[in-house]
Amino acid sequence: MQDASFETLLVAEERSVLRVTLNRPQKRNAMNSAMVAEIRQCFEYAEDNTSVRAIVLRGAQGHFCAGGDIADMRQSGSEEEQRDAAWAFNRTFGHLMSSVQHSSKIVIAALEGAVMGGGFGLACVSDMAIATSSTRFAMPETSLGLIPAQIAPFVVARIGLTQTRRLALLGSTLSGQEAHSLGLVHECVTDEAALDAALNEALIQVNLVAPKATAVTKRLVLDAHRLPVDDTLLDRAADDFADALLSAEGREGANAFVQKRAPHWRLDDTK
Amino acid sequence: MQDASFETLLVAEERSVLRVTLNRPQKRNAMNSAMVAEIRQCFEYAEDNTSVRAIVLRGAQGHFCAGGDIADMRQSGSEEEQRDAAWAFNRTFGHLMSSVQHSSKIVIAALEGAVMGGGFGLACVSDMAIATSSTRFAMPETSLGLIPAQIAPFVVARIGLTQTRRLALLGSTLSGQEAHSLGLVHECVTDEAALDAALNEALIQVNLVAPKATAVTKRLVLDAHRLPVDDTLLDRAADDFADALLSAEGREGANAFVQKRAPHWRLDDTK
Amino acid sequence: MQDASFETLLVAEERSVLRVTLNRPQKRNAMNSAMVAEIRQCFEYAEDNTSVRAIVLRGAQGHFCAGGDIADMRQSGSEEEQRDAAWAFNRTFGHLMSSVQHSSKIVIAALEGAVMGGGFGLACVSDMAIATSSTRFAMPETSLGLIPAQIAPFVVARIGLTQTRRLALLGSTLSGQEAHSLGLVHECVTDEAALDAALNEALIQVNLVAPKATAVTKRLVLDAHRLPVDDTLLDRAADDFADALLSAEGREGANAFVQKRAPHWRLDDTK
Repeated sequence: MQDASFETLLVAEERSVLRVTLNRPQKRNAMNSAMVAEIRQCFEYAEDNTSVRAIVLRGAQGHFCAGGDIADMRQSGSEEEQRDAAWAFNRTFGHLMSSVQHSSKIVIAALEGAVMGGGFGLACVSDMAIATSSTRFAMPETSLGLIPAQIAPFVVARIGLTQTRRLALLGSTLSGQEAHSLGLVHECVTDEAALDAALNEALIQVNLVAPKATAVTKRLVLDAHRLPVDDTLLDRAADDFADALLSAEGREGANAFVQKRAPHWRLDDTK
Repeated sequence: MQDASFETLLVAEERSVLRVTLNRPQKRNAMNSAMVAEIRQCFEYAEDNTSVRAIVLRGAQGHFCAGGDIADMRQSGSEEEQRDAAWAFNRTFGHLMSSVQHSSKIVIAALEGAVMGGGFGLACVSDMAIATSSTRFAMPETSLGLIPAQIAPFVVARIGLTQTRRLALLGSTLSGQEAHSLGLVHECVTDEAALDAALNEALIQVNLVAPKATAVTKRLVLDAHRLPVDDTLLDRAADDFADALLSAEGREGANAFVQKRAPHWRLDDTK
Repeated sequence: MQDASFETLLVAEERSVLRVTLNRPQKRNAMNSAMVAEIRQCFEYAEDNTSVRAIVLRGAQGHFCAGGDIADMRQSGSEEEQRDAAWAFNRTFGHLMSSVQHSSKIVIAALEGAVMGGGFGLACVSDMAIATSSTRFAMPETSLGLIPAQIAPFVVARIGLTQTRRLALLGSTLSGQEAHSLGLVHECVTDEAALDAALNEALIQVNLVAPKATAVTKRLVLDAHRLPVDDTLLDRAADDFADALLSAEGREGANAFVQKRAPHWRLDDTK
């Protein structure tokens, strides 16, 4: 993928990792329609490319993302046209959220500065999120007379009803450390250098796990979150297990284990 | 609302805040049928009054609530009459729990001393809960041969299956700090003075957010907790968003933001 | 229950407690088919014996359980026979998980050393879990090209979507302290002696609660986790409450409370 083709993103692909950097720093990387479309394009590209194992979401110049760009939500025209534009802007963002949530790749969010509104939502659909202690998280919608509409359902899935109701209603701000305590992020580090280091550690970890097994596992984990744990789910999980055990990856994993060597899927130079 | 009309509560309304104080201190504010009915009456009143934005639940004289009043659960009469009375006492409390959970207002619980049984349940349906470090939480039902029947479902929604099963089965006691770690309360402060201060902070925050937007957001968050995150839910969320953006509140929020002034819904003297 | 009858377990019954110790220390207590069958047998025995109130799951010689025994997953034969054997091995383990999850007894997991794969799963269906700070938890399946198939749904129920997706995808290792922070275990103590002490405390607590009331409460808590909190659930909870209040346990609990004495279900010498 080439940077050149993006208006609002910096995109770099290094062997197994697609780095997607929100790049409207003058707006603290607030998402407009163009950015939402371009991030979706990146996730579609990744879905179609087996070489991509992880997607790193980050913001340019010290902020992750300040939310949705209010300028893009409000269109001129009749009441009905305004309403349709608002609806479409909001709903389209929800489609992005779903794409990221259900991406078969490992999605890592590297969080700094403002993680607000839609940016808060995006952080909530990552598989691993790392923040710095100076990162600030909030859903400020209700203080503007708006609602965190497409975001709230994913926030509930992320941190549960109890924390979401307070944050979504009162618009309270969380520090990186508080976000870590609430389980919104998996790690909170001191500064940007430590964030780079933690991200590298996570990518080394990505390199140790089998790509097809992680894709199947992710689908299973997401299904287990929304479906009852019953025979239907567990029978299908056993299908997945048997398929994995007999697959090329499963056989290679067992051979590598017995022979005490790295499995073939491990890329020596991935960092 | 007038205090005079309540047998078991102290009730005070100050502009946007309805303060409901459980007031049977000789019983550590244990809930009898009268108290349950009176709290429900307060929530109905609030639902019908747009001037009320927040409801503060607290207990008189150092305890929040020691649970259900056992004297009121057991009625004399035939086996069937006793059973019917027990059933009604329990189920009526569940209706109170549901009313508080689904109140369109912001419900804040200020917790001190004993938060037991039904009191524990009530704490679990607040939007924001603040405790002191000497607050004690427990569901002691199983140690009396009883079960935390109407409470347990709301506790599971509050703190999840893992913590609930231990607390509900073993009747273990939690300190304010432990309740904070488990996410049962949002804040744990040192003493009563700090509790007053934290409550005031929360009420200032209530004053910053738009009342209709918070009501819609609360319904959305509760729906997101019980429904699958699918197109139906997200389409409806987009409806809510578009409605909010074009509403008087949404327009006022945008104008205030652009003009760098407080929105009209902000009450200057609310504290 | 006699030790003599088990190949892979040490089993001891002391009045109200059934102690089930995984005992294949040369394999860090990895579960083979025989062990899975024998643990299920213990839970069936407990279900049929009212004298058993708690089941303690532990591992022999410093490790809880290193997972499923890989040697037992792979059978020779045709592709189809191999697949069937893998499916059955996996699914049978899931049936064990369900039995432990839904046991009417109080299940306590005492965790040391390796708590991996299937062992991690087993820890996640306990009512109370205690670990030492040197305990290590992980789901290493994806690093072997496999998936945590029967385990993942129970892990999601235990620690939620956010933590599960990271651990299941990346195979990250948690310390006892981290497992406590995430709510995977309820207590983390310093060493084996402290683990014994904490386990004794928990068993004293078991002795204070009424056995039938805990069984009904456990079913209610598990139902509340998978079902909507609506009139159907709350009406049934009121049935359970009224039944409990009028039961022998409920009457004894009330009498003991009024007479300020221990209820009859308390076993004086249980420790």
